[in-house]
Amino acid sequence: MKDINFEQLEVGFDVPAVPGMDAADIQTPCLVLDLDALERNIKKMGDYAKDHGMRHRAHGKMHKSVDVLKLQQDLGAAVGVCCQKVSEAEVFARGGIKDVMVSNQVTDPAKIDRLAKMPKLGCRVLVCVDDPENVKALSEAAVKHGTQIEALVEIDCGAGRCGVSTTQDVVNIAKLIDSAEGLKFAGIQAYQGAMQHMDLYTDRKEKLDVAIAQVADAVQGLKSNGLDCDIVGGGGTGSYYFESGSGVYNELQCGSYAFMDADYGRILDEDGQRIDQGEWENALFILTTVMSHAKADKAIVDAGLKAQSVDSGLPFVYGRDDVEYLKCSDEHGVVADPNGALKVNDKLRLVPGHCDPTCNVHDWYVGVRGDKVETVWPVSARGKAY
Amino acid sequence: MKDINFEQLEVGFDVPAVPGMDAADIQTPCLVLDLDALERNIKKMGDYAKDHGMRHRAHGKMHKSVDVLKLQQDLGAAVGVCCQKVSEAEVFARGGIKDVMVSNQVTDPAKIDRLAKMPKLGCRVLVCVDDPENVKALSEAAVKHGTQIEALVEIDCGAGRCGVSTTQDVVNIAKLIDSAEGLKFAGIQAYQGAMQHMDLYTDRKEKLDVAIAQVADAVQGLKSNGLDCDIVGGGGTGSYYFESGSGVYNELQCGSYAFMDADYGRILDEDGQRIDQGEWENALFILTTVMSHAKADKAIVDAGLKAQSVDSGLPFVYGRDDVEYLKCSDEHGVVADPNGALKVNDKLRLVPGHCDPTCNVHDWYVGVRGDKVETVWPVSARGKAY
Repeated sequence: MKDINFEQLEVGFDVPAVPGMDAADIQTPCLVLDLDALERNIKKMGDYAKDHGMRHRAHGKMHKSVDVLKLQQDLGAAVGVCCQKVSEAEVFARGGIKDVMVSNQVTDPAKIDRLAKMPKLGCRVLVCVDDPENVKALSEAAVKHGTQIEALVEIDCGAGRCGVSTTQDVVNIAKLIDSAEGLKFAGIQAYQGAMQHMDLYTDRKEKLDVAIAQVADAVQGLKSNGLDCDIVGGGGTGSYYFESGSGVYNELQCGSYAFMDADYGRILDEDGQRIDQGEWENALFILTTVMSHAKADKAIVDAGLKAQSVDSGLPFVYGRDDVEYLKCSDEHGVVADPNGALKVNDKLRLVPGHCDPTCNVHDWYVGVRGDKVETVWPVSARGKAY
Repeated sequence: MKDINFEQLEVGFDVPAVPGMDAADIQTPCLVLDLDALERNIKKMGDYAKDHGMRHRAHGKMHKSVDVLKLQQDLGAAVGVCCQKVSEAEVFARGGIKDVMVSNQVTDPAKIDRLAKMPKLGCRVLVCVDDPENVKALSEAAVKHGTQIEALVEIDCGAGRCGVSTTQDVVNIAKLIDSAEGLKFAGIQAYQGAMQHMDLYTDRKEKLDVAIAQVADAVQGLKSNGLDCDIVGGGGTGSYYFESGSGVYNELQCGSYAFMDADYGRILDEDGQRIDQGEWENALFILTTVMSHAKADKAIVDAGLKAQSVDSGLPFVYGRDDVEYLKCSDEHGVVADPNGALKVNDKLRLVPGHCDPTCNVHDWYVGVRGDKVETVWPVSARGKAY
């Protein structure tokens, strides 16, 4: 990672802001991080993991930022990163992260080759497998490059995506990994993605109980075949307390807790409270400006579909209940302003519906403390989808 | 625009492909352009405009690519570009486009200042206005920089976003522009965005008839105040034939016709045929790879929410009716494969739900002809949302 020379960058073309600027001068639309809230979130999750004897491998696919990941290591005692793509992993490895997991399948020959070269950057490299054929290809690439890849078997414990479904399949693939040259069997990847956004704590617990039983059976099956799991990993912002209390998992992979978003924010904790009203703070915002107010009751803002992903619903306007983000098109958001409270060039903070794909649209995070821009961080792995 | 030195770029990290590569080696997920189809679409729209005495100002906000815009000028006789943001306009101006319209409001003082400097790049600069206060700010900036900005009054003719609603308001703002130092009154911007995706031709026509009457009244109102419109602009892929036949509009601003997408593709022409089955060809695809097939009836592909925008629905798999893209999460797409036709590392072409915000997620277009990669173009204005 080269240091960024902000003097060579034009505000409003290359970057939305530079460090030291007044927050009022930030060019919109852009992503703003409330650094105080971000740091509190990161420290809280780190403390939770430590207190519960868990390692935390922060999910870098959410923020795609080497800078945020380093904060998660420094303030939140994260042991490393997990992410979803080889090119993304390379960004973290080149950025100095020493323990890098691709918590996903890598099957394309060119991608496998890149993955096998990654340990030469000085980091531990882990990947997930759900296909016996894949073991052979990974092994050959590691041997070719004289490196070691650690491989976990991925279990589909309810997400309905990648992963095998039976303990027998887990054991079969684990044995193949264990005996493959250049590979090391590292454990199990078991992320229940589909339950993370269920509103009710009890509904989420029910799904996780099933996943934990499935994973426990697999761990036992491996043990009786002489295979120990260094890592049993999973857990997200809507479930980490279940994995932590399971006695089976030992690594958490939370991502969204650090930034929060509207879709996660509305799920409820054990006491029935929204998790963005106590458990976590909104630290990520889309800063947007009113650019037209030609109708008395509607303000048009400059953040539309190119400033966010609306796959999980619309953003909400942070800290205001007198105005509401109603709909959007490519470059416009329509904000109901029944009392005419807004005027052209007013700014609003939007909490995006879904943080991960929203971050991936932007090139920069503007880190704000009080009224000042303190940091401007690149979204280092933006667009690294390969 | 500097030429791209592909020798310095790593395939699979910096770029998904380089010119001359076999198409089979393209790294996924990425955007692929069928150059033959693209060229036919572009030529067809150019011919249509010429044959109907219309100018075509191609909408650059769709593709955000200087290279595609130049093709629209060279093959499709486009007179210039319209786009939505100042930073985007700057990309086209710096890329050598000589006639650049921001078909949107620019109200932030820093953005106005940048806009007023743009004519110094050697291009004509146009912008839209819906607020009398804005005229003053634009005029002062043009005077400060010794430049001329051409300003159009934007009419809200049904899109429900920016724009004034009455002829009186049009005339009032036009007079202010006409008498403001540094500004030149250039005409009317009137894009009916809300009707473009109505399925039925007759429904679309009904909405456009209303818009045309509104615009005709405004043109007449301006005329009786001694103000002529150089440009009466609007028209999209779902309506351009209505504006062309109106006798009022003289500039089209179509964008999506060049690439097509699933949401536009399903609207019907006058004969009740889908417009992607005759009027336009699918030229834009998300190329994706099967990365897991652990369940017999489902393939998991590597294009999810970070490879597209699903605001207007899911993509469809091009050229296949035996498989179906069912749902997606951040990095995964789930494809129904009831006959087990797919295997790991097979590739599919997806037609995205909505081209504009999908293009904005990617850094590159891979232009393919036959089995070869012919061009790799940057999405020049990607992320230029300011």
